Amino acid sequence: MALTIDSERLSRELDQLAEFSDTAAPAVTRVVYSEQDRRARAFLKGLFRDAGLEVLEDAIGNTFARWPGSDPDLPAAATGSHIDAVPNGGKYDGTVGVLGGLEAIRALQSSGFRPRRSIELIVFTAEEPTRFGPGCFGSRVATGAMVDWQAGRLVDKDGKTLDQWRQEAGFEGPLESVAWPEGRYASFVELHIEQGTELERAGVPLGIVTAIAAPACFRVTVEGEGGHAGTVPMPARRDALCAAAAIVLEVEKAARTAGAEESVATVGAFDVFPGAANGIPSRVRLQIDIRDTDRARRDQLMNQIMTACRDCAIGRKLTVRAEPICMDAPAECSPEITATLARAAGTHGLAWRHLASRACHDTLFMTRVARSGMLFIPCRGGVSHRPDEYAAPEAIANGALVLAEALAELSA
Amino acid sequence: MALTIDSERLSRELDQLAEFSDTAAPAVTRVVYSEQDRRARAFLKGLFRDAGLEVLEDAIGNTFARWPGSDPDLPAAATGSHIDAVPNGGKYDGTVGVLGGLEAIRALQSSGFRPRRSIELIVFTAEEPTRFGPGCFGSRVATGAMVDWQAGRLVDKDGKTLDQWRQEAGFEGPLESVAWPEGRYASFVELHIEQGTELERAGVPLGIVTAIAAPACFRVTVEGEGGHAGTVPMPARRDALCAAAAIVLEVEKAARTAGAEESVATVGAFDVFPGAANGIPSRVRLQIDIRDTDRARRDQLMNQIMTACRDCAIGRKLTVRAEPICMDAPAECSPEITATLARAAGTHGLAWRHLASRACHDTLFMTRVARSGMLFIPCRGGVSHRPDEYAAPEAIANGALVLAEALAELSA
Repeated sequence: MALTIDSERLSRELDQLAEFSDTAAPAVTRVVYSEQDRRARAFLKGLFRDAGLEVLEDAIGNTFARWPGSDPDLPAAATGSHIDAVPNGGKYDGTVGVLGGLEAIRALQSSGFRPRRSIELIVFTAEEPTRFGPGCFGSRVATGAMVDWQAGRLVDKDGKTLDQWRQEAGFEGPLESVAWPEGRYASFVELHIEQGTELERAGVPLGIVTAIAAPACFRVTVEGEGGHAGTVPMPARRDALCAAAAIVLEVEKAARTAGAEESVATVGAFDVFPGAANGIPSRVRLQIDIRDTDRARRDQLMNQIMTACRDCAIGRKLTVRAEPICMDAPAECSPEITATLARAAGTHGLAWRHLASRACHDTLFMTRVARSGMLFIPCRGGVSHRPDEYAAPEAIANGALVLAEALAELSA
Repeated sequence: MALTIDSERLSRELDQLAEFSDTAAPAVTRVVYSEQDRRARAFLKGLFRDAGLEVLEDAIGNTFARWPGSDPDLPAAATGSHIDAVPNGGKYDGTVGVLGGLEAIRALQSSGFRPRRSIELIVFTAEEPTRFGPGCFGSRVATGAMVDWQAGRLVDKDGKTLDQWRQEAGFEGPLESVAWPEGRYASFVELHIEQGTELERAGVPLGIVTAIAAPACFRVTVEGEGGHAGTVPMPARRDALCAAAAIVLEVEKAARTAGAEESVATVGAFDVFPGAANGIPSRVRLQIDIRDTDRARRDQLMNQIMTACRDCAIGRKLTVRAEPICMDAPAECSPEITATLARAAGTHGLAWRHLASRACHDTLFMTRVARSGMLFIPCRGGVSHRPDEYAAPEAIANGALVLAEALAELSA
């Protein structure tokens, strides 16, 4: 079987996909269900159909491009990733797994290969938490990690519901239809940029992921008391921004002193109300993201941060409310899949190393329902979620080639 | 001369004006040049014309309702305030001086009084700093405290220019036409809610202002480095939000330890970019407002805060840029005007006390061009810039009555 990746076509399609963005190039902003997200989906479905794949969508917009196998009743071999991009993000996060997955399928088709199991390329809805809070929304619901009534209660920061958003984007039907029946997939492999520097520093073209870190996320609301910036004396103030600032610094300090390089905590979303230059802020809403590859260490860091929030509320005589958004366990990848990926890399003479994923991915949830694994390619300086995110065409082609080889084995 | 204030009409018109708002009652949000601001202006101009006043507007929307005197070439006696409201503000800030001023003029008209000098009611554009940064924008430009080329460079936080905004709102013509010729006004009196608790605590219905505190304001931009919240280790981060949080706490600490109750400093506007829940913030824009009734003390506080910004930039290896927006000197009110106000209050048997204004007002700039003063009425709990801002109808009527009496003397 001679597999050929058309690297030029793959680069061109990544460029085309990046044009569906709410920010000017090179920044990509494509939040789920936005106009640009919908246009990007239409573009992709066109490519899938041109490749002869059957296209299906579920009630929240998870998209499935299927190449039927000779025994289509067997559980399928799946690959995929996501195409939503964080605000002011880059061009490669998620998209490499989607367009690289498509290119892998095209390579198998051109080689004359005929799969026994069907091969499915999945585009997961809302891997990024931007709109609704929990990350990996599409895979979370499809794998039953979030049940329909939990999903149905999701709202964005302006109070607009998931149902309003998905219906505007053209996705209808009951949420309970999204969860898959058992045994739908035999395996899942996600191709992704590393978003770290381990491969680049080691000069190794491929990473085979053994474990995936998972975030604990909290939405925190600080309620103080507004007032005139000129007339309320300092001792009489209950300034929500000062309290939230103290929390931000406690989050930073707790993560810095947690004792492991893998311990990180971040406040990324932070909205101040009412935002008048000459008014004391009365409310701040912020989101805390706490991660570690070790669950016990992560939970300890989380507890320390929650204690800091409580102390801040007491010390400043205001209200600090923390609601958990997600608190997932880290996951192990399937040893059978990592072995398959190692064989596939070996077939093409490409070096690889095992590593852990510090970022979270849809694969975390796919491990619940199928033997799952991830294939990483290096990205420049480990930079991600930024406009200067970059992966070289040859690195992406390596990934797509090994993915194709692995899909051949997994669909046999 | 028998002066009668129609307190019911005045309350009703305050209610009507409050309906032009971008937030639901009781909150009032009316930012200059917004759709609601334009509608409120149209409503007011109708009232002014119904009262037989001549209405003029300048190139930035300062509005002048004129009752011509028998000797119209003499410098006029003026009163007025503003109608723009901070985000999530209240119903009385500024509006009491505009509708109370109109009611004072109506009372004089009904009493049969005929002014020798013209009486002018001025509605100043953008007393609040929300849109463009500097407060008292209209009076600042009209009195020459901000020259036309400085005004012409103003932009909002999205980069939209003053010229774009004012033209959309229907205000055209060269900015240099806004500054007044010398000797246009003989006097200016502004009626306003106190926004503090001195009158309420003393049980005194009127405050005669002797001095006005002035803010020093800075726009601060913190530029760090974005990145993925999962994959960038804590020691490698240059998180703009953590740096900005440290600045917020330094501002609070500096004001708390400045040694005088009059020393206050506030960060009210605070915008985090890109605002992704799982991305490290790369940039924060915030605004610092520093006030004191004593200029030397204020400037010392300001220097301390600027040093803290510099130290933060060095310590965290990122960029902190502070641009001054305004740095006005506090002003003294005219002893002749305070004497006039005391006589007018005495005529109506209303007690008063002298006090300093800790909030800034257009009168600060009017002192540059005319004998100027302010008349305060109590507001509940000193609350202002909040939806629960409240002044009793009888308190407002007292203010309008004494204002009318004073305008009679000042226009004679």
